[in-house]
Amino acid sequence: MPISETWLLPDGVADVLPEQAQVIETLRRDALDFLASRGYQLVYTPFIEYIESLSSLSESNQDLDLATFKVIDQLSGRLLGVRADMTPQVARIDAHVHQVQGIARYCYAGTVLHTKPQGFNTTRAPLQLGAELFGSDSIDADVEMIDVMLNLLKTAGFDRGIHLDIGHVGLFRSLVKHAGLSKSTENQLSDLYQRKALPELAEFTQDIKFGTDFYTLGRFSSDLDALQANLSAELLADEAFKQAFDALLTTKSEIQARWPNLDIGIDVVELRSYHYHTGLMYAVYAPNRAAPVAQGGRYDGIGEHFGRARPATGFSCDLYALCAGQFKKIEKVVAPKGTNKDLLTAIENARAQGLSVIQLLGNDDLNSVPYATHQMVNTAGEWKIEKI
Amino acid sequence: MPISETWLLPDGVADVLPEQAQVIETLRRDALDFLASRGYQLVYTPFIEYIESLSSLSESNQDLDLATFKVIDQLSGRLLGVRADMTPQVARIDAHVHQVQGIARYCYAGTVLHTKPQGFNTTRAPLQLGAELFGSDSIDADVEMIDVMLNLLKTAGFDRGIHLDIGHVGLFRSLVKHAGLSKSTENQLSDLYQRKALPELAEFTQDIKFGTDFYTLGRFSSDLDALQANLSAELLADEAFKQAFDALLTTKSEIQARWPNLDIGIDVVELRSYHYHTGLMYAVYAPNRAAPVAQGGRYDGIGEHFGRARPATGFSCDLYALCAGQFKKIEKVVAPKGTNKDLLTAIENARAQGLSVIQLLGNDDLNSVPYATHQMVNTAGEWKIEKI
Repeated sequence: MPISETWLLPDGVADVLPEQAQVIETLRRDALDFLASRGYQLVYTPFIEYIESLSSLSESNQDLDLATFKVIDQLSGRLLGVRADMTPQVARIDAHVHQVQGIARYCYAGTVLHTKPQGFNTTRAPLQLGAELFGSDSIDADVEMIDVMLNLLKTAGFDRGIHLDIGHVGLFRSLVKHAGLSKSTENQLSDLYQRKALPELAEFTQDIKFGTDFYTLGRFSSDLDALQANLSAELLADEAFKQAFDALLTTKSEIQARWPNLDIGIDVVELRSYHYHTGLMYAVYAPNRAAPVAQGGRYDGIGEHFGRARPATGFSCDLYALCAGQFKKIEKVVAPKGTNKDLLTAIENARAQGLSVIQLLGNDDLNSVPYATHQMVNTAGEWKIEKI
Repeated sequence: MPISETWLLPDGVADVLPEQAQVIETLRRDALDFLASRGYQLVYTPFIEYIESLSSLSESNQDLDLATFKVIDQLSGRLLGVRADMTPQVARIDAHVHQVQGIARYCYAGTVLHTKPQGFNTTRAPLQLGAELFGSDSIDADVEMIDVMLNLLKTAGFDRGIHLDIGHVGLFRSLVKHAGLSKSTENQLSDLYQRKALPELAEFTQDIKFGTDFYTLGRFSSDLDALQANLSAELLADEAFKQAFDALLTTKSEIQARWPNLDIGIDVVELRSYHYHTGLMYAVYAPNRAAPVAQGGRYDGIGEHFGRARPATGFSCDLYALCAGQFKKIEKVVAPKGTNKDLLTAIENARAQGLSVIQLLGNDDLNSVPYATHQMVNTAGEWKIEKI
């Protein structure tokens, strides 16, 4: 971040200047157009809401609540939150406002605010773009979502060297249920998995029921064949476990069939937003990027808060992060002052062709627009555009 | 506002559903493309800033300060404001961040938040779109700005029955200076003008210096000829007054020449944002709308706060207000499930043509998308799109 910005703007907040805004604006449009072509309908969600509406997720996701700026509504005296995530808002729309019968697909793009950066060197004001599918619990919906996410990333130039990670909270969750573990033990295990602390996990699982299976889950977290070979027959026969396991297998093969060159990884103990998600989870990583460039998953029942629990799956990404470091120089044509009809027609035509044309003001000359790249000159009675 | 929204969302805040979002999105793009063709470069400004940065205008405009939601920055402990107007931000960019030599043109579009609705039945979260021109104090700059504003409104469908109002704070201001009035008397007069209280104005001006001129300004506020005929010769000879008066005359005739059918009115005592503006002011009114659909003016020196005072003129409008009541039904094509190559190609082609195509999921049939308008059917080996 240049010195001038750190001097004037809060940490994690930045101006987007024309050379970069142009790139982001183009991607924003391409992405929304692509999503529309897939049947995802655009919604604009409010920037502020009563905190209760925004907290449909935060009940189970304290991070989101902590990330939300709160203000007092001077009209009602109630507490408002500035949106930190648009997913709960779209869920509210599906559940309450725009009650589509059957399957509903929505997309959105807008700034969200976080009280603190959510990662190293990240913005506090991402330009969140995402898509959500409500009303289908079929694997096909997850596959469509991942396929849409990958196509969108391709639009943004992320098609080579990327890596798709797939997980499913159902494996761990059904094993916990099968073993009948307490909430506290569940949380300890979840923490061990997230820290990838295998030696500790080995020790911890020694004394608990189905300990070997819990250890195996961590030990072979990225290898479905090894899991199948090493997990207990009793667990593999558990209906919920089997369903989650099969969902992972099917999704992986369906996506690999559509994206044969894609590097797909499995992580059955990736429990990043364990309390939030209810099924498949997916994230795409790109070279030299610490955080995923896009991520999502299934969060069935999110609309329950608003009186309509429906199956739901979706993903989102930060357009600023996708466009990081990309700039586009904008060409500027300068035309002389005057109301001569030929000149005005020539200017109009150039603008209609998508050129940016500035007509000089007052007594100004070319020096007033030193950044101009082209000028309009009259050669033999005809207006032409020449490089400066 | 439907009951559901008032139940769940704060007053003056609304969801924008697909049928309307589509209209707004299209206008947003058309407007930004038009502004780009005129040389106005897109910037994205931050949603939150240190309150000191946002208050470059609010020092002289308490309304803006009152309209700004404030939050504490958890990183710095300092006070942040949620942007209530993007103009001061663009001025900061011109002054400090993007120091273009010569004349700079910027445009922007984004949500701003107001603590309270700024008018009857208005939103607290307008989608502000605007353009600013920095570095030129010539009348041509004001004329360009008004011309750009009118063209933009035309893009939004406002080309018939609209009314342009032009004012200039310089007439009143130079008369105050010429008469040497105190700040308190100036404020009282400003209040009388704004309330259009002619009898009170007559009484009040009886005893003050240049009282007849102050009364005449209010009495013939919309008639430049009558003003010229009735104002004192001493005032008409005042350099600053004359300059303001001529600016009004020139602007009116220049705009009328470009927009021969436009209804243009003059109001020399329209002092709506008197403390903020420094020269010409303009507003466009449309039939059956209480508030202007777009407005702007000159505010020279705004960047002084950031160490670079430059001449500046600009306008803004609320895209939500411009699109009020407009809806566009979106056509949805449903395609059967399957990975048959001909089918996939047909779907791809339809999407490339701009159609919104949904492929059925899992075991779903047409009932899963009851809102579909068309379907893809195979007739004699060829995929065709038929109305449902």
